[in-house]
Amino acid sequence: MAALTLTDLFAVPDLDRSLQPALQQALDGKAKPPGALGRIEELALTLGLIQRRLKPAVERPVLLVFAGDHGLTRSGVAAFPSGVTVAMVDTLLAGKASANAFARVVGAEVRVIDAGVAADLSGREGLVHAKIAPGTADASVEPAMTAAQAEAALLAGAQVAEDAIADGADLLALGEMGIGNSASAALLMHRLAPAPLDDCVGQGAGHSPEGMARKRAVLAQAAARSDATAPFEVLTQFGGYEIAMMAGAVLAAARAGAPVLIDGFIGTAAALLAIRLAPAARGYCLFAHASAEAGHRLMLEALNARPLLGLDMRLGEGTGALLAVPLVQAACALLSEVAELSDVLEAAG
Amino acid sequence: MAALTLTDLFAVPDLDRSLQPALQQALDGKAKPPGALGRIEELALTLGLIQRRLKPAVERPVLLVFAGDHGLTRSGVAAFPSGVTVAMVDTLLAGKASANAFARVVGAEVRVIDAGVAADLSGREGLVHAKIAPGTADASVEPAMTAAQAEAALLAGAQVAEDAIADGADLLALGEMGIGNSASAALLMHRLAPAPLDDCVGQGAGHSPEGMARKRAVLAQAAARSDATAPFEVLTQFGGYEIAMMAGAVLAAARAGAPVLIDGFIGTAAALLAIRLAPAARGYCLFAHASAEAGHRLMLEALNARPLLGLDMRLGEGTGALLAVPLVQAACALLSEVAELSDVLEAAG
Repeated sequence: MAALTLTDLFAVPDLDRSLQPALQQALDGKAKPPGALGRIEELALTLGLIQRRLKPAVERPVLLVFAGDHGLTRSGVAAFPSGVTVAMVDTLLAGKASANAFARVVGAEVRVIDAGVAADLSGREGLVHAKIAPGTADASVEPAMTAAQAEAALLAGAQVAEDAIADGADLLALGEMGIGNSASAALLMHRLAPAPLDDCVGQGAGHSPEGMARKRAVLAQAAARSDATAPFEVLTQFGGYEIAMMAGAVLAAARAGAPVLIDGFIGTAAALLAIRLAPAARGYCLFAHASAEAGHRLMLEALNARPLLGLDMRLGEGTGALLAVPLVQAACALLSEVAELSDVLEAAG
Repeated sequence: MAALTLTDLFAVPDLDRSLQPALQQALDGKAKPPGALGRIEELALTLGLIQRRLKPAVERPVLLVFAGDHGLTRSGVAAFPSGVTVAMVDTLLAGKASANAFARVVGAEVRVIDAGVAADLSGREGLVHAKIAPGTADASVEPAMTAAQAEAALLAGAQVAEDAIADGADLLALGEMGIGNSASAALLMHRLAPAPLDDCVGQGAGHSPEGMARKRAVLAQAAARSDATAPFEVLTQFGGYEIAMMAGAVLAAARAGAPVLIDGFIGTAAALLAIRLAPAARGYCLFAHASAEAGHRLMLEALNARPLLGLDMRLGEGTGALLAVPLVQAACALLSEVAELSDVLEAAG
């Protein structure tokens, strides 16, 4: 089989809506007042369309956590040192991060991918080795990556998603770890939503007022360096390897007809990138959680997305996506396991 | 052991807050920015206080679905015939209601209780038989129940909760089934929140404009019949057996130091009743879902409660409570399974 190209990857088919009337009829026929399960019914309809069947099923959810470092941290956009990315990758591999704990609760497998961590992780067992480079360049002074690196990252992310699906995953949840990546995501949002830069910049993992002022100044400097608005060019100028791989994973999931759960601010920036590269990808995205990070609401509006959960979280790692997994499974169970209203009313006489 | 009395049941101890500083310190010390898991952290703190330990655990969630009929339906407050209550009890016993499907997703046991269904269910296997009477009287023309019946229902609900806890339940979720019970709940809210009656009346399981007008008129007639505001008296005038039993279950859970997940509009009315009977019970209640039923928001405000989920559902059966179970378990896992931030920062160098 020939290797996947970007042209292939961007050729996402539109969501097939031919089952919509039959799915709506099935939902309205369940033993409850029509519409009484609200967003769970909407979700059931969407899952049926994505999986192209009247009884969608999600039995093997897999969380993909992509990790990468950001040259922007050298200009002081982050509250934590860049070495925390490695330490958190090790915590994830040890099963002791929040994402691992939540994944055990919802029965999801966790795969951790080195997309571009600024350290040699070649000896780490259990890690998916897909490093493009040891961190991006500092986007405040030069492009974050080359076009070849951006292409390689998109394709590598797609490969990781395809591998998970080949292994049986029927729902992908996307998470990330990368000190400085809320700064990169803010720049992507600024150009791709698009939205004024100031509306895109938030606390990230935490900042003093001085830290926030520095983050804003560095991002303004980066934005002034390039006026790119085309999505692939925006990725090279301002992106991160973990964000590029998440976008590639979204596109691959969409091509495979698999639903993909989008987490918070950074995950949504990656989905935004994927959707600007291939608009039909929007149909396969389930938005899990409205982040407490400033700007997330605006970015969701740009995507006409209303997340399932709003728990004031702002951690990343895919924690928000994981907590939405049971909602997805409940939506499937509604279509597969619940009695017909007609039978109940007949029994009621 | 002497039988439980109402005096015992109303003697709920205040939530013990002595572990709060230690729990907050444990949460702040986890491998994430302080507060970055938002409401999951608040939930972890609350669970630690309720269970009085630094590592709360929820391994055996049990949903109690209380079913009862309402004399108010004879005056036309409901869109479905009263016989649907029996048919839905049978659907629940067959494992084919929405609550059963959701319970399987989240790993919860379901127990169905005949609190006061207007049919002889004595032959139904798997049903908890606690019927006080075959439906309440029509509250628009006379008190819904006698004081003796209200007392018996509160104590029976407490017994059901105590039995579940004795069987190992470490989280109770409360659901209900009862055609007409949103009308009863509206009257309870009106007197106990308190709030203007019109703000308490919603669609229930669905109504035409004419049906809504009739529901409003019947409830105004009921409200005009009695000016009761004392909680036990309000229960006798306007309550339902399933609502009384849910209130009893809330009080028993609180007395046992067990967290209790409150579902939507009718569940919140039952919790409101329990909290007006014994204000300390508030500390043990976790509010799961903001219902699409009009009035729920106001009732939650009266209880200073902010539900975990908002999925536009309005079904009952405990469906909203069930979907919050994984959030409760994630909160426990955060305290028990996640690494310390100090270890991560030390590894980061």
